[in-house]
Amino acid sequence: MAVAVKALFFDVFGTLVDWRGSIAREAKAVLEPHGFVSLDWLGFADAWRGEYQGAMEEVRSGRIGFCKLDVLHRRNLDRVLPRFGADKLGEADRVNLNLAWHRLDAWPDVPPGLKRLKARYRLAPLSNGNISLQVDLARRNGLPWDAILGAEFAGDYKPKPRVYLAAAAAFDLAPSDCMMVAAHTSDLKAAAALGLRTAHIARPDERGPGKGEAAPGAPVDIAAGSLEDLAAKLGT
Amino acid sequence: MAVAVKALFFDVFGTLVDWRGSIAREAKAVLEPHGFVSLDWLGFADAWRGEYQGAMEEVRSGRIGFCKLDVLHRRNLDRVLPRFGADKLGEADRVNLNLAWHRLDAWPDVPPGLKRLKARYRLAPLSNGNISLQVDLARRNGLPWDAILGAEFAGDYKPKPRVYLAAAAAFDLAPSDCMMVAAHTSDLKAAAALGLRTAHIARPDERGPGKGEAAPGAPVDIAAGSLEDLAAKLGT
Repeated sequence: MAVAVKALFFDVFGTLVDWRGSIAREAKAVLEPHGFVSLDWLGFADAWRGEYQGAMEEVRSGRIGFCKLDVLHRRNLDRVLPRFGADKLGEADRVNLNLAWHRLDAWPDVPPGLKRLKARYRLAPLSNGNISLQVDLARRNGLPWDAILGAEFAGDYKPKPRVYLAAAAAFDLAPSDCMMVAAHTSDLKAAAALGLRTAHIARPDERGPGKGEAAPGAPVDIAAGSLEDLAAKLGT
Repeated sequence: MAVAVKALFFDVFGTLVDWRGSIAREAKAVLEPHGFVSLDWLGFADAWRGEYQGAMEEVRSGRIGFCKLDVLHRRNLDRVLPRFGADKLGEADRVNLNLAWHRLDAWPDVPPGLKRLKARYRLAPLSNGNISLQVDLARRNGLPWDAILGAEFAGDYKPKPRVYLAAAAAFDLAPSDCMMVAAHTSDLKAAAALGLRTAHIARPDERGPGKGEAAPGAPVDIAAGSLEDLAAKLGT
Protein backbone atom coordinates (compact mmCIF):
# COMPACT_ATOMS: atom_id res chain seq x y z
CA MET A 1 0.00 0.00 0.00
CA ALA A 2 1.69 3.18 -1.20
CA VAL A 3 0.60 5.39 1.67
CA ALA A 4 3.68 6.70 3.42
CA VAL A 5 2.62 8.36 6.63
CA LYS A 6 4.37 8.72 9.97
CA ALA A 7 1.47 9.01 12.39
CA LEU A 8 -1.98 7.52 12.70
CA PHE A 9 -4.74 9.44 14.49
CA PHE A 10 -7.78 7.54 15.69
CA ASP A 11 -11.37 8.37 16.25
CA VAL A 12 -12.36 6.47 19.41
CA PHE A 13 -16.14 6.28 20.06
CA GLY A 14 -17.46 3.69 17.63
CA THR A 15 -14.17 3.24 15.78
CA LEU A 16 -12.16 1.70 18.62
CA VAL A 17 -14.71 1.11 21.37
CA ASP A 18 -18.28 -0.17 21.49
CA TRP A 19 -19.92 2.77 23.22
CA ARG A 20 -23.44 1.44 22.70
CA GLY A 21 -23.08 -1.97 24.30
CA SER A 22 -20.82 -0.62 27.04
CA ILE A 23 -23.08 2.27 28.02
CA ALA A 24 -26.09 -0.06 28.08
CA ARG A 25 -24.21 -2.40 30.44
CA GLU A 26 -23.02 0.44 32.68
CA ALA A 27 -26.45 2.10 32.82
CA LYS A 28 -27.98 -1.20 33.86
CA ALA A 29 -25.36 -1.66 36.59
CA VAL A 30 -26.09 1.77 38.07
CA LEU A 31 -29.86 1.96 37.59
CA GLU A 32 -31.05 -1.59 38.21
CA PRO A 33 -30.33 -1.44 41.98
CA HIS A 34 -32.72 1.53 42.05
CA GLY A 35 -35.56 -0.60 40.72
CA PHE A 36 -35.24 0.02 37.00
CA VAL A 37 -35.50 -3.59 35.93
CA SER A 38 -36.96 -3.57 32.44
CA LEU A 39 -35.52 -0.40 31.00
CA ASP A 40 -34.48 -0.34 27.35
CA TRP A 41 -30.76 -0.15 28.13
CA LEU A 42 -29.65 0.11 24.51
CA GLY A 43 -32.30 2.76 24.01
CA PHE A 44 -30.89 4.62 26.99
CA ALA A 45 -27.42 4.50 25.42
CA ASP A 46 -28.84 5.75 22.12
CA ALA A 47 -30.72 8.58 23.83
CA TRP A 48 -27.62 9.73 25.75
CA ARG A 49 -25.45 9.55 22.64
CA GLY A 50 -28.20 11.36 20.76
CA GLU A 51 -27.43 14.53 22.70
CA TYR A 52 -23.73 14.37 21.79
CA GLN A 53 -23.46 16.44 18.61
CA GLY A 54 -25.82 19.17 19.81
CA ALA A 55 -23.81 19.66 23.00
CA MET A 56 -20.52 19.94 21.13
CA GLU A 57 -22.07 22.35 18.66
CA GLU A 58 -22.53 24.79 21.57
CA VAL A 59 -18.73 24.86 21.86
CA ARG A 60 -17.91 24.70 18.15
CA SER A 61 -20.20 27.64 17.46
CA GLY A 62 -18.63 29.67 20.25
CA ARG A 63 -21.87 29.95 22.22
CA ILE A 64 -20.06 28.46 25.24
CA GLY A 65 -16.35 28.18 25.97
CA PHE A 66 -14.50 24.90 25.64
CA CYS A 67 -15.17 22.36 28.36
CA LYS A 68 -14.28 18.69 28.62
CA LEU A 69 -16.56 16.13 27.07
CA ASP A 70 -17.14 14.75 30.59
CA VAL A 71 -18.93 18.02 31.35
CA LEU A 72 -21.07 17.82 28.23
CA HIS A 73 -21.86 14.16 28.91
CA ARG A 74 -23.08 15.12 32.36
CA ARG A 75 -25.37 17.85 31.06
CA ASN A 76 -26.73 15.39 28.53
CA LEU A 77 -27.23 12.73 31.20
CA ASP A 78 -29.24 15.13 33.33
CA ARG A 79 -31.38 15.83 30.28
CA VAL A 80 -31.94 12.17 29.40
CA LEU A 81 -32.61 10.64 32.84
CA PRO A 82 -36.11 12.17 33.22
CA ARG A 83 -37.16 10.69 29.89
CA PHE A 84 -36.55 7.25 31.41
CA GLY A 85 -38.30 8.08 34.67
CA ALA A 86 -35.00 8.35 36.56
CA ASP A 87 -35.13 12.03 37.46
CA LYS A 88 -34.68 11.15 41.15
CA LEU A 89 -31.26 9.55 40.65
CA GLY A 90 -28.84 11.03 43.21
CA GLU A 91 -25.66 12.96 42.64
CA ALA A 92 -23.21 10.16 43.47
CA ASP A 93 -24.92 7.81 41.04
CA ARG A 94 -24.93 10.48 38.35
CA VAL A 95 -21.20 11.06 38.81
CA ASN A 96 -20.58 7.33 38.63
CA LEU A 97 -22.86 6.81 35.63
CA ASN A 98 -21.22 9.71 33.81
CA LEU A 99 -17.88 7.92 34.17
CA ALA A 100 -19.38 5.02 32.20
CA TRP A 101 -17.73 6.71 29.20
CA HIS A 102 -14.37 5.94 30.86
CA ARG A 103 -15.31 2.24 31.03
CA LEU A 104 -16.04 1.41 27.40
CA ASP A 105 -14.77 -1.83 25.90
CA ALA A 106 -12.66 -1.93 22.75
CA TRP A 107 -13.71 -3.97 19.74
CA PRO A 108 -11.67 -7.21 19.83
CA ASP A 109 -9.48 -6.31 16.84
CA VAL A 110 -8.28 -3.05 18.38
CA PRO A 111 -5.58 -4.04 20.92
CA PRO A 112 -3.79 -6.46 18.56
CA GLY A 113 -4.18 -4.07 15.63
CA LEU A 114 -2.72 -1.11 17.51
CA LYS A 115 0.15 -3.24 18.76
CA ARG A 116 1.13 -4.06 15.18
CA LEU A 117 0.71 -0.46 14.00
CA LYS A 118 2.78 0.94 16.88
CA ALA A 119 5.90 -0.74 15.53
CA ARG A 120 5.94 1.60 12.55
CA TYR A 121 3.76 4.62 13.34
CA ARG A 122 3.23 7.19 16.05
CA LEU A 123 -0.26 6.60 17.42
CA ALA A 124 -2.63 8.99 19.15
CA PRO A 125 -6.35 9.21 19.74
CA LEU A 126 -7.85 12.18 17.91
CA SER A 127 -11.16 12.01 19.69
CA ASN A 128 -13.63 14.42 21.19
CA GLY A 129 -13.21 12.57 24.49
CA ASN A 130 -11.12 14.31 27.13
CA ILE A 131 -7.64 13.28 28.23
CA SER A 132 -8.60 11.51 31.47
CA LEU A 133 -11.28 9.57 29.60
CA GLN A 134 -8.74 8.45 27.01
CA VAL A 135 -6.27 7.48 29.73
CA ASP A 136 -8.90 5.31 31.41
CA LEU A 137 -9.90 3.67 28.11
CA ALA A 138 -6.24 3.04 27.30
CA ARG A 139 -5.57 1.41 30.66
CA ARG A 140 -8.75 -0.66 30.50
CA ASN A 141 -8.16 -1.92 26.97
CA GLY A 142 -4.37 -1.81 26.60
CA LEU A 143 -4.21 0.92 23.95
CA PRO A 144 -0.53 1.82 23.42
CA TRP A 145 -0.77 5.55 22.71
CA ASP A 146 2.30 7.70 22.16
CA ALA A 147 0.37 10.77 23.29
CA ILE A 148 -3.22 11.82 23.93
CA LEU A 149 -4.20 14.43 21.37
CA GLY A 150 -7.67 15.53 20.19
CA ALA A 151 -10.30 17.93 21.43
CA GLU A 152 -9.00 18.81 24.90
CA PHE A 153 -5.50 19.39 23.53
CA ALA A 154 -6.84 21.62 20.75
CA GLY A 155 -9.52 23.36 22.83
CA ASP A 156 -12.30 22.69 20.35
CA TYR A 157 -14.32 19.77 18.98
CA LYS A 158 -14.09 17.83 15.74
CA PRO A 159 -14.75 18.43 12.95
CA LYS A 160 -13.27 21.90 13.57
CA PRO A 161 -10.00 22.09 11.59
CA ARG A 162 -7.78 23.05 14.50
CA VAL A 163 -8.36 19.69 16.22
CA TYR A 164 -6.74 17.82 13.32
CA LEU A 165 -4.07 20.45 12.64
CA ALA A 166 -3.03 20.74 16.29
CA ALA A 167 -2.44 16.99 16.40
CA ALA A 168 -0.20 17.03 13.33
CA ALA A 169 1.70 20.05 14.67
CA ALA A 170 2.25 18.38 18.04
CA PHE A 171 4.05 15.57 16.22
CA ASP A 172 6.04 18.03 14.05
CA LEU A 173 4.35 16.62 10.99
CA ALA A 174 2.67 18.03 7.91
CA PRO A 175 -0.99 16.95 7.60
CA SER A 176 -0.01 14.79 4.61
CA ASP A 177 2.30 12.77 6.87
CA CYS A 178 -0.68 11.84 9.06
CA MET A 179 -3.59 9.48 8.55
CA MET A 180 -6.98 9.83 10.21
CA VAL A 181 -8.57 6.48 11.05
CA ALA A 182 -12.32 6.47 11.69
CA ALA A 183 -15.54 4.56 11.21
CA HIS A 184 -17.32 7.77 10.22
CA THR A 185 -17.13 9.33 6.77
CA SER A 186 -17.81 12.83 8.13
CA ASP A 187 -14.68 12.68 10.30
CA LEU A 188 -12.58 11.47 7.37
CA LYS A 189 -13.93 14.13 5.02
CA ALA A 190 -12.97 16.85 7.50
CA ALA A 191 -9.47 15.39 7.84
CA ALA A 192 -9.01 14.93 4.09
CA ALA A 193 -10.00 18.55 3.44
CA LEU A 194 -6.98 19.56 5.52
CA GLY A 195 -4.58 17.27 3.68
CA LEU A 196 -4.52 14.26 5.99
CA ARG A 197 -4.64 10.78 4.54
CA THR A 198 -7.66 8.68 5.52
CA ALA A 199 -8.55 5.14 6.52
CA HIS A 200 -12.11 3.94 7.05
CA ILE A 201 -12.83 1.11 9.47
CA ALA A 202 -16.10 -0.72 8.90
CA ARG A 203 -18.27 -0.86 12.05
CA PRO A 204 -21.58 -1.89 10.49
CA ASP A 205 -23.29 -2.49 13.84
CA GLU A 206 -22.00 0.56 15.77
CA ARG A 207 -25.41 2.10 16.42
CA GLY A 208 -27.28 -1.21 16.42
CA PRO A 209 -27.54 -4.08 13.93
CA GLY A 210 -26.89 -2.65 10.46
CA LYS A 211 -26.89 0.90 11.79
CA GLY A 212 -23.21 1.68 11.31
CA GLU A 213 -21.04 2.41 8.29
CA ALA A 214 -20.19 -0.84 6.50
CA ALA A 215 -18.20 1.13 3.93
CA PRO A 216 -16.97 4.72 3.49
CA GLY A 217 -19.38 7.18 1.97
CA ALA A 218 -16.63 9.16 0.25
CA PRO A 219 -13.22 8.37 -1.28
CA VAL A 220 -10.58 7.29 1.27
CA ASP A 221 -7.00 6.08 0.98
CA ILE A 222 -7.74 2.77 2.70
CA ALA A 223 -11.00 1.00 3.51
CA ALA A 224 -10.47 -1.71 6.12
CA GLY A 225 -12.68 -4.16 7.94
CA SER A 226 -10.81 -3.92 11.23
CA LEU A 227 -7.62 -2.51 12.74
CA GLU A 228 -5.88 -5.79 12.03
CA ASP A 229 -6.94 -5.46 8.42
CA LEU A 230 -5.61 -1.89 8.42
CA ALA A 231 -2.30 -3.11 9.87
CA ALA A 232 -2.08 -5.69 7.10
CA LYS A 233 -2.93 -3.15 4.41
CA LEU A 234 -0.24 -0.82 5.74
CA GLY A 235 2.25 -3.69 5.62
CA THR A 236 2.81 -4.02 9.37
CA MET B 1 4.72 5.73 53.22
CA ALA B 2 1.53 7.66 53.95
CA VAL B 3 1.43 9.63 50.72
CA ALA B 4 -1.82 8.84 48.94
CA VAL B 5 -1.65 10.31 45.46
CA LYS B 6 -3.19 9.18 42.18
CA ALA B 7 -0.78 10.60 39.63
CA LEU B 8 2.95 11.12 39.38
CA PHE B 9 4.35 13.92 37.22
CA PHE B 10 7.99 13.74 36.17
CA ASP B 11 10.62 16.25 35.34
CA VAL B 12 12.61 14.72 32.48
CA PHE B 13 15.95 16.46 31.71
CA GLY B 14 18.31 15.35 34.46
CA THR B 15 15.69 13.51 36.48
CA LEU B 16 14.91 10.74 33.98
CA VAL B 17 17.51 11.18 31.26
CA ASP B 18 21.22 11.98 31.18
CA TRP B 19 21.14 15.05 28.97
CA ARG B 20 24.82 15.88 29.52
CA GLY B 21 26.37 12.58 28.47
CA SER B 22 23.85 12.09 25.67
CA ILE B 23 24.28 15.57 24.16
CA ALA B 24 28.08 15.20 24.33
CA ARG B 25 27.81 11.90 22.42
CA GLU B 26 25.39 13.31 19.83
CA ALA B 27 27.44 16.48 19.31
CA LYS B 28 30.53 14.41 18.71
CA ALA B 29 28.66 12.22 16.21
CA VAL B 30 27.53 15.24 14.19
CA LEU B 31 30.61 17.46 14.47
CA GLU B 32 33.54 15.03 14.35
CA PRO B 33 33.01 14.21 10.65
CA HIS B 34 33.47 17.95 10.02
CA GLY B 35 36.96 17.86 11.54
CA PHE B 36 36.17 18.78 15.13
CA VAL B 37 38.27 16.06 16.71
CA SER B 38 39.35 17.37 20.09
CA LEU B 39 36.36 19.47 21.10
CA ASP B 40 35.30 19.52 24.75
CA TRP B 41 32.09 17.59 24.10
CA LEU B 42 30.83 17.75 27.67
CA GLY B 43 31.67 21.45 27.68
CA PHE B 44 29.62 21.82 24.50
CA ALA B 45 26.67 20.11 26.22
CA ASP B 46 27.06 22.41 29.23
CA ALA B 47 27.24 25.51 27.05
CA TRP B 48 24.11 24.55 25.10
CA ARG B 49 22.22 23.72 28.29
CA GLY B 50 23.51 26.96 29.75
CA GLU B 51 21.27 28.92 27.39
CA TYR B 52 18.17 26.97 28.47
CA GLN B 53 16.72 29.02 31.30
CA GLY B 54 17.32 32.36 29.60
CA ALA B 55 15.52 31.25 26.47
CA MET B 56 12.49 30.01 28.41
CA GLU B 57 12.42 33.22 30.41
CA GLU B 58 11.65 35.06 27.17
CA VAL B 59 8.40 33.08 27.03
CA ARG B 60 7.64 33.07 30.75
CA SER B 61 8.00 36.83 30.89
CA GLY B 62 5.72 37.29 27.89
CA ARG B 63 8.41 38.94 25.76
CA ILE B 64 7.78 36.30 23.10
CA GLY B 65 4.81 33.99 22.58
CA PHE B 66 4.97 30.32 23.47
CA CYS B 67 7.00 28.15 21.13
CA LYS B 68 8.16 24.56 21.46
CA LEU B 69 11.40 23.86 23.29
CA ASP B 70 12.78 22.49 20.00
CA VAL B 71 12.60 26.05 18.66
CA LEU B 72 14.39 27.48 21.69
CA HIS B 73 17.02 24.73 21.55
CA ARG B 74 17.69 25.65 17.93
CA ARG B 75 18.15 29.35 18.72
CA ASN B 76 20.48 28.38 21.53
CA LEU B 77 22.43 26.04 19.28
CA ASP B 78 22.97 28.79 16.71
CA ARG B 79 24.28 30.95 19.54
CA VAL B 80 26.64 28.30 20.93
CA LEU B 81 28.15 26.88 17.74
CA PRO B 82 30.34 29.95 16.99
CA ARG B 83 31.87 29.75 20.47
CA PHE B 84 33.22 26.34 19.51
CA GLY B 85 34.40 27.47 16.11
CA ALA B 86 31.56 25.68 14.35
CA ASP B 87 29.77 28.67 12.88
CA LYS B 88 30.00 27.16 9.38
CA LEU B 89 27.93 24.08 10.26
CA GLY B 90 25.22 23.67 7.61
CA GLU B 91 21.48 23.69 8.01
CA ALA B 92 20.90 19.93 7.70
CA ASP B 93 23.50 19.24 10.39
CA ARG B 94 21.97 21.87 12.66
CA VAL B 95 18.53 20.32 12.25
CA ASN B 96 19.97 16.90 13.02
CA LEU B 97 22.03 18.11 15.97
CA ASN B 98 19.03 19.94 17.40
CA LEU B 99 17.17 16.64 17.45
CA ALA B 100 19.88 15.29 19.78
CA TRP B 101 17.45 16.28 22.55
CA HIS B 102 15.08 13.63 21.17
CA ARG B 103 17.84 11.00 21.51
CA LEU B 104 18.74 11.23 25.19
CA ASP B 105 19.32 8.08 27.22
CA ALA B 106 17.43 7.35 30.43
CA TRP B 107 19.28 6.65 33.66
CA PRO B 108 19.25 2.84 34.16
CA ASP B 109 16.78 2.89 37.08
CA VAL B 110 14.13 4.75 35.09
CA PRO B 111 12.46 2.13 32.85
CA PRO B 112 12.12 -0.50 35.64
CA GLY B 113 11.05 2.16 38.15
CA LEU B 114 8.34 3.58 35.90
CA LYS B 115 7.08 0.09 35.10
CA ARG B 116 6.54 -0.57 38.81
CA LEU B 117 4.94 2.83 39.41
CA LYS B 118 2.58 2.48 36.46
CA ALA B 119 0.74 -0.36 38.19
CA ARG B 120 -0.65 2.03 40.77
CA TYR B 121 -0.36 5.59 39.44
CA ARG B 122 -1.16 7.59 36.36
CA LEU B 123 2.17 8.73 34.93
CA ALA B 124 3.01 11.73 32.77
CA PRO B 125 6.07 13.79 31.99
CA LEU B 126 5.68 17.32 33.30
CA SER B 127 8.65 18.67 31.41
CA ASN B 128 9.55 21.77 29.45
CA GLY B 129 10.33 19.50 26.50
CA ASN B 130 7.75 19.45 23.73
CA ILE B 131 5.39 16.59 22.94
CA SER B 132 7.29 15.14 19.97
CA LEU B 133 10.50 15.20 22.00
CA GLN B 134 8.82 13.32 24.83
CA VAL B 135 7.35 10.80 22.38
CA ASP B 136 10.80 10.12 20.94
CA LEU B 137 12.38 9.78 24.40
CA ALA B 138 9.58 7.44 25.46
CA ARG B 139 10.00 5.22 22.41
CA ARG B 140 13.79 5.19 22.75
CA ASN B 141 13.79 4.34 26.45
CA GLY B 142 10.51 2.50 26.97
CA LEU B 143 8.82 5.09 29.17
CA PRO B 144 5.20 3.97 29.71
CA TRP B 145 3.40 7.33 29.84
CA ASP B 146 -0.35 7.59 30.20
CA ALA B 147 -0.30 11.00 28.54
CA ILE B 148 2.22 13.69 27.59
CA LEU B 149 1.57 16.76 29.69
CA GLY B 150 3.86 19.68 30.54
CA ALA B 151 4.89 22.91 28.83
CA GLU B 152 3.48 22.43 25.35
CA PHE B 153 0.14 21.28 26.75
CA ALA B 154 -0.02 24.27 29.10
CA GLY B 155 1.42 26.82 26.67
CA ASP B 156 4.04 28.11 29.12
CA TYR B 157 7.23 26.94 30.81
CA LYS B 158 7.92 25.66 34.32
CA PRO B 159 8.04 26.92 36.96
CA LYS B 160 4.98 28.95 35.89
CA PRO B 161 2.02 27.69 37.96
CA ARG B 162 -0.24 26.90 35.03
CA VAL B 163 2.09 24.13 33.81
CA TYR B 164 1.58 22.15 37.03
CA LEU B 165 -2.09 23.05 37.41
CA ALA B 166 -2.98 22.19 33.81
CA ALA B 167 -1.50 18.72 34.30
CA ALA B 168 -3.55 18.04 37.43
CA ALA B 169 -6.69 19.36 35.73
CA ALA B 170 -6.12 17.16 32.66
CA PHE B 171 -6.25 14.14 34.96
CA ASP B 172 -9.34 15.47 36.82
CA LEU B 173 -7.29 15.65 40.00
CA ALA B 174 -6.73 18.18 42.75
CA PRO B 175 -3.07 19.25 43.05
CA SER B 176 -2.90 17.38 46.37
CA ASP B 177 -3.69 14.13 44.55
CA CYS B 178 -0.59 14.61 42.39
CA MET B 179 3.12 14.22 43.12
CA MET B 180 5.87 16.06 41.29
CA VAL B 181 9.03 13.98 40.89
CA ALA B 182 12.24 15.84 40.10
CA ALA B 183 15.98 16.03 40.74
CA HIS B 184 15.74 19.80 41.15
CA THR B 185 14.61 21.53 44.33
CA SER B 186 13.40 24.60 42.44
CA ASP B 187 10.92 22.50 40.44
CA LEU B 188 9.65 20.82 43.61
CA LYS B 189 9.28 24.10 45.47
CA ALA B 190 7.14 25.51 42.66
CA ALA B 191 4.95 22.38 42.70
CA ALA B 192 4.64 22.32 46.50
CA ALA B 193 3.55 25.97 46.54
CA LEU B 194 0.54 24.91 44.46
CA GLY B 195 -0.36 22.01 46.72
CA LEU B 196 1.27 19.12 44.90
CA ARG B 197 3.15 16.47 46.85
CA THR B 198 6.85 16.17 46.05
CA ALA B 199 9.51 13.52 45.58
CA HIS B 200 13.18 14.32 45.08
CA ILE B 201 15.40 11.97 43.08
CA ALA B 202 19.13 12.25 43.78
CA ARG B 203 21.16 12.81 40.61
CA PRO B 204 24.45 13.93 42.17
CA ASP B 205 26.36 13.83 38.87
CA GLU B 206 23.76 15.40 36.58
CA ARG B 207 25.88 18.40 35.56
CA GLY B 208 29.20 16.62 35.99
CA PRO B 209 30.82 14.71 38.87
CA GLY B 210 29.37 16.08 42.10
CA LYS B 211 27.54 18.85 40.23
CA GLY B 212 23.99 17.65 40.75
CA GLU B 213 21.63 17.56 43.71
CA ALA B 214 22.53 14.66 46.01
CA ALA B 215 19.69 15.65 48.34
CA PRO B 216 16.75 18.06 48.27
CA GLY B 217 17.45 21.63 49.33
CA ALA B 218 13.99 22.08 50.83
CA PRO B 219 11.44 19.85 52.58
CA VAL B 220 9.88 17.19 50.35
CA ASP B 221 7.47 14.32 50.96
CA ILE B 222 9.90 11.69 49.74
CA ALA B 223 13.64 11.80 49.07
CA ALA B 224 14.74 8.87 46.93
CA GLY B 225 17.98 7.70 45.39
CA SER B 226 16.41 6.44 42.19
CA LEU B 227 13.03 5.71 40.62
CA GLU B 228 13.24 2.15 41.90
CA ASP B 229 13.83 3.53 45.37
CA LEU B 230 10.80 5.81 44.88
CA ALA B 231 8.71 2.83 43.78
CA ALA B 232 9.75 0.97 46.91
CA LYS B 233 9.02 3.96 49.15
CA LEU B 234 5.57 4.29 47.59
CA GLY B 235 4.96 0.60 48.27
CA THR B 236 4.85 -0.55 44.65
